[in-house]
Amino acid sequence: MTQARASETAQSQGESAQLIDGKAYAADVRARVGRQVEQLRDQHGIQPGLAVVLVGEDAASQVYVNMKAKKTGEVGMQSFQHRLPIDTDEQTLLDLVHQLNADPNVHGILVQLPLPDQIDSEKVLAAIDPAKDVDGFHVVNAGLLSRGQLDRALVPCTPMGCLMLLEDQLGDLTGLNAVVLGRSNIVGKPMSQLLLARNCTVTIAHSKTKDLAAVCRNADILVAAVGRTRMVPGDWIKPGATVIDVGINRLPPEREGEKGPLVGDVDFDSAKQVAGAITPVPGGVGPMTIAVLLANTVTACCRAHGIAEPTV
Amino acid sequence: MTQARASETAQSQGESAQLIDGKAYAADVRARVGRQVEQLRDQHGIQPGLAVVLVGEDAASQVYVNMKAKKTGEVGMQSFQHRLPIDTDEQTLLDLVHQLNADPNVHGILVQLPLPDQIDSEKVLAAIDPAKDVDGFHVVNAGLLSRGQLDRALVPCTPMGCLMLLEDQLGDLTGLNAVVLGRSNIVGKPMSQLLLARNCTVTIAHSKTKDLAAVCRNADILVAAVGRTRMVPGDWIKPGATVIDVGINRLPPEREGEKGPLVGDVDFDSAKQVAGAITPVPGGVGPMTIAVLLANTVTACCRAHGIAEPTV
Repeated sequence: MTQARASETAQSQGESAQLIDGKAYAADVRARVGRQVEQLRDQHGIQPGLAVVLVGEDAASQVYVNMKAKKTGEVGMQSFQHRLPIDTDEQTLLDLVHQLNADPNVHGILVQLPLPDQIDSEKVLAAIDPAKDVDGFHVVNAGLLSRGQLDRALVPCTPMGCLMLLEDQLGDLTGLNAVVLGRSNIVGKPMSQLLLARNCTVTIAHSKTKDLAAVCRNADILVAAVGRTRMVPGDWIKPGATVIDVGINRLPPEREGEKGPLVGDVDFDSAKQVAGAITPVPGGVGPMTIAVLLANTVTACCRAHGIAEPTV
Repeated sequence: MTQARASETAQSQGESAQLIDGKAYAADVRARVGRQVEQLRDQHGIQPGLAVVLVGEDAASQVYVNMKAKKTGEVGMQSFQHRLPIDTDEQTLLDLVHQLNADPNVHGILVQLPLPDQIDSEKVLAAIDPAKDVDGFHVVNAGLLSRGQLDRALVPCTPMGCLMLLEDQLGDLTGLNAVVLGRSNIVGKPMSQLLLARNCTVTIAHSKTKDLAAVCRNADILVAAVGRTRMVPGDWIKPGATVIDVGINRLPPEREGEKGPLVGDVDFDSAKQVAGAITPVPGGVGPMTIAVLLANTVTACCRAHGIAEPTV
């Protein structure tokens, strides 16, 4: 996606923000991954493979796992699915992880969270070979990212997706003031480290920050990842800033038995009148996560085989 | 050290900044380590041991290694010194590291940098057992620190020393605006992660930051770790801020054959008229590094034995 491809809807309504179309950009990323997979097959006889492990039958987890399997197949990668019963014990799961670590056809391993109570999630995630840790949650990958060794790390998918949207929108990020709202290990911290690696001046703000409004108003790039419904109003946003809304919060339904609408951490209606560009919720950051997961699997596959990633 | 113990020299000269006496505080830390070592001996029959490895005869490195050995002995810990010739090959050094990893009397391993050209430093540091990595340079310790898992990490000594001085000076750091100047893996990045773990709003600034002066003026806590002589003038400092100067830069000597004086990254003379408290160079952060190294060795020893750290 180029800036030109970003929707001009906002402008046509007399508002200022471009909409950053994460859905379209994610489709571009998946298409690029598909061409990489094709080249790997044609030139090296290799097929990247992604193993997804699901324990139990949590409805939301099943939706995610099915979606990942579907997208994996669509880009021509091999999809390995392991569905274990809810009462699986920790050792059984660890044994499966070790088996997947050793399997040369498996280049990426994803254990769907949450895991049932009898299993120590941290122990399981730590057992995944860091070189196959396409979720980027292993402590070794956290360390590599923290040190800016992006050529060796596997980076968590959601913040990496945010970075891709930002670079597509803004080009070189050097010298921009970036504010990351939220300090989770899955989004906020890796996001701040990626922005630092791209030469932004980075501020991490959180629930203990005094005068959040003033901090946010200084941001050329504002990434909101706190999980609080519409907590960032338009008047916290610097005019022209690029706003990435990672929050996915469900409002109460209007009618009984229906699902309420999804909204972000940013108050979209007021923010789009101030921001230069903004991701909508849904259709912004959300679709990027699986796209980066697939891209990470290709990266892991190429590293495992000691070959350069196809440029397509 | 308490605030009362900070030197009042500045005030008595009609200036505002308290001097943060790192030398005195480091002596306190070493004394505490000494009491811990005593308790470990008396109550558990354990003596913490620190192994220091020096390759070659670099003059500065020899001074550091001798200093570390001396302080290790002074607190009652066992000191293991390994001095290898300058032409040592990588495998010989790796073999020594593995031997130290396996030695139950060695709780901390420090390989003095820089290493000669024929040896890949990163490979050697990666070979050290993370649980004995008292320098905190291993990627696993970087990852643990990045994730805020301070109860499991070994933290790099210099930034940990800065944090100790800050907490001694300010108490709870929650909600303070902290600006870290410099993004090295040894100081800047771990410093920012420690301050975040203490609930500061943290900004990391660096050579690509636009308007460094404005960024610094917003800091309640300013940590300068860039290695550029007196680059932070007093008028970049928020009145009353606490300033930690990690820089150690040597000025040209006034007379031939002499050594020039040491100065920090902060222009001390103008800064002390604005800051609330400031570390001098020398005598500020410098002495803390070895003190924390000793404290880290006690921590590693207690974890290796599965016992709580003595509170003394």
